[in-house]
Amino acid sequence: MELVEGGITAVPGIFAAGISAGIKKTAVPDLALIVSESDAVIAGVLTRNKVAAAPVLLARQRLRGGRARAILANSGNANACTGRSGIADAREMAALAAGLLGCSADHVFVGSTGVIGQPLPMDRIRAAIPRLVSQLSRQGGREAARAIMTTDTTIKMAAATESIAGRQITLGGIAKGSGMIHPDMATMLAYLVTDAHISRAMLQRALRMAMAQSFNRIPLDGDTSTNDMVLCLANGLAGNQSFSTTGSDGRRFQELLNTVCQDLAKMIARDGEGATKFVELRVTGARTETDALRVANTVATSSLVKTAWFGQDSNWGRIMAAIGRAGVTIRENRIAISYGDIPVVRRGIGLGQAAEVQANVVLRQREFTLTVHLGQGRAAATVWTSDLTLDYVKINASYRS
Amino acid sequence: MELVEGGITAVPGIFAAGISAGIKKTAVPDLALIVSESDAVIAGVLTRNKVAAAPVLLARQRLRGGRARAILANSGNANACTGRSGIADAREMAALAAGLLGCSADHVFVGSTGVIGQPLPMDRIRAAIPRLVSQLSRQGGREAARAIMTTDTTIKMAAATESIAGRQITLGGIAKGSGMIHPDMATMLAYLVTDAHISRAMLQRALRMAMAQSFNRIPLDGDTSTNDMVLCLANGLAGNQSFSTTGSDGRRFQELLNTVCQDLAKMIARDGEGATKFVELRVTGARTETDALRVANTVATSSLVKTAWFGQDSNWGRIMAAIGRAGVTIRENRIAISYGDIPVVRRGIGLGQAAEVQANVVLRQREFTLTVHLGQGRAAATVWTSDLTLDYVKINASYRS
Repeated sequence: MELVEGGITAVPGIFAAGISAGIKKTAVPDLALIVSESDAVIAGVLTRNKVAAAPVLLARQRLRGGRARAILANSGNANACTGRSGIADAREMAALAAGLLGCSADHVFVGSTGVIGQPLPMDRIRAAIPRLVSQLSRQGGREAARAIMTTDTTIKMAAATESIAGRQITLGGIAKGSGMIHPDMATMLAYLVTDAHISRAMLQRALRMAMAQSFNRIPLDGDTSTNDMVLCLANGLAGNQSFSTTGSDGRRFQELLNTVCQDLAKMIARDGEGATKFVELRVTGARTETDALRVANTVATSSLVKTAWFGQDSNWGRIMAAIGRAGVTIRENRIAISYGDIPVVRRGIGLGQAAEVQANVVLRQREFTLTVHLGQGRAAATVWTSDLTLDYVKINASYRS
Repeated sequence: MELVEGGITAVPGIFAAGISAGIKKTAVPDLALIVSESDAVIAGVLTRNKVAAAPVLLARQRLRGGRARAILANSGNANACTGRSGIADAREMAALAAGLLGCSADHVFVGSTGVIGQPLPMDRIRAAIPRLVSQLSRQGGREAARAIMTTDTTIKMAAATESIAGRQITLGGIAKGSGMIHPDMATMLAYLVTDAHISRAMLQRALRMAMAQSFNRIPLDGDTSTNDMVLCLANGLAGNQSFSTTGSDGRRFQELLNTVCQDLAKMIARDGEGATKFVELRVTGARTETDALRVANTVATSSLVKTAWFGQDSNWGRIMAAIGRAGVTIRENRIAISYGDIPVVRRGIGLGQAAEVQANVVLRQREFTLTVHLGQGRAAATVWTSDLTLDYVKINASYRS
């Protein structure tokens, strides 16, 4: 496998654009379009939130068809809690793009992120769509990625290629998301494209598997905003032969998808709202992977642990307390905790001042690893997260979402 | 029922004291003692955290006996993750007090709150206990309440009396706790005393009922620190006749206990770390009380909702998103939301700019009510919570717990 530049437009047959349509208050990009030059299959995972935004409801319908030509996404307005007129607006957006692209409206997916409960400024969107279509290009991946950002401070895009079933297959993606405090992720959008020739069912299965190793590891699993949406479109232009999920080609495709999704997920964790730290949290020695994940998520979403990271304080007592309430069978006197290579707890007891001073040096880094060993078995899990900072509060006290 | 002054020492036969033993770095009170002049029954609810502090492990044993004369509690050090020597220290604290009080060590309960993973400074505690005992008085309730504070900014004490089974019965309590961001409450301690003559089993049952209406409503239910402990001691000095749980006397006793616990719980919510807002959150129109509580807890613990309160922004979209992921069956188009008397959402849709401007006036108050109506049934639940502020992060990034 090889990482490549260009994000989604690294993939043959994919065109993209991003422009300012005037949905946001300032003149920054807020409308993105991704188009496949030929018909494609599409797989998707949508929010499980019972208050689902209009574009999510539309995507739920259209995923049943399983075919797509384009994804049209806006930032600045979530089109959520907007009732029937919100759904009509999402449909109209798709229809306008479909008219200009010469495809069925059912093959255009819509995504939105931003403020909840405001009607979309449809006059501006209607005016912008022809301009957006005219700017589609084989270099537009970055502009599309930029146009879906909300409180994100970095553009999130990735792509990789791998030899699969006799052909070089490319897979690229863009994402947005930076609200990282579980259980309140801000909206996460990710749009993936590939030139693989693959069935819709296999693509759907591979996407779910990849999500379990990526977007569901930055702890936000099960907890969803009104607009979360991950789509993966495959246009088949690589012309590869069919491959099975279980064979080596299937494994390589899964690996390719996992890699791109994990890269994007880590970018989201790194860009946690107001974050000053990026933490790779490994839980080892668990009885089961589920146990390991439960402990990892409880520690990674503890406000007390996260503020201690911001304070650059190893504060292992808060980690012990979080482990203890994770709902997993543990033995306090088997737990070991390390920051980077520095052990701070062994057999459930702190290793003293000198160890903590060394650990605090690790915590001064922008990125570090925290390892929790439970001493209960052989299962493990890794999640990525960030700290809870003064800027997180400032951003969310002032930003209207 | 009548509220009275004096906290725990409003109760006949209860003596208390609080002094500085040098456990904390600064010379503030950090060691409290509560003594009943006669033998008492005791009920208790302890942390469910699997990493339980030494005093919790000791209390778990001693609650089986169900009798008590005294409670000795320190702040500044949690005596958690301290292994066998921590348990020996807790035992020794109880034994020292018992020796001076002339009672069995098994009848002395110990509580601790503060930094995890440090051994107690036993030399200082040994030196302080005789001084503490010598200061016991019928006016010491406030000093005891002060000595269990950690990041608390207010002393938490309450008492009330009620005529039950032919006698005037008094019940008082003290509490500490101010970490309010679920699921990471800082340690909560509450010590209740009464002169009621009541069996241990009835007292235990009443305490569990009262907790469900008070300390478990400031959202921290199920999520516990290593040291959480609520004890209720009844010395029987009122000399009342026995009463049954289900009769009117039983109901009045329950009401008395609920009132004192609720007062203390609200004091904890008001004193949320760095809080600038106190919010009474009512969920109505739920199918079951469990549903109502689930929605209330999800909204009350949403970091995005809590930062919006800090920003004095009614931001109902974040409330809708929280409702949607509470794991409860809802219909988006039946939801209504009000701040104080100002409706901001009806039938799942926002009521527009003018309503929000009015609601923002409500949010400028120090205390306000938020009502979420689900339109699914007749069950309801109320919880009390606070906002998530810059000071919360500052306190927890610098305070070592």
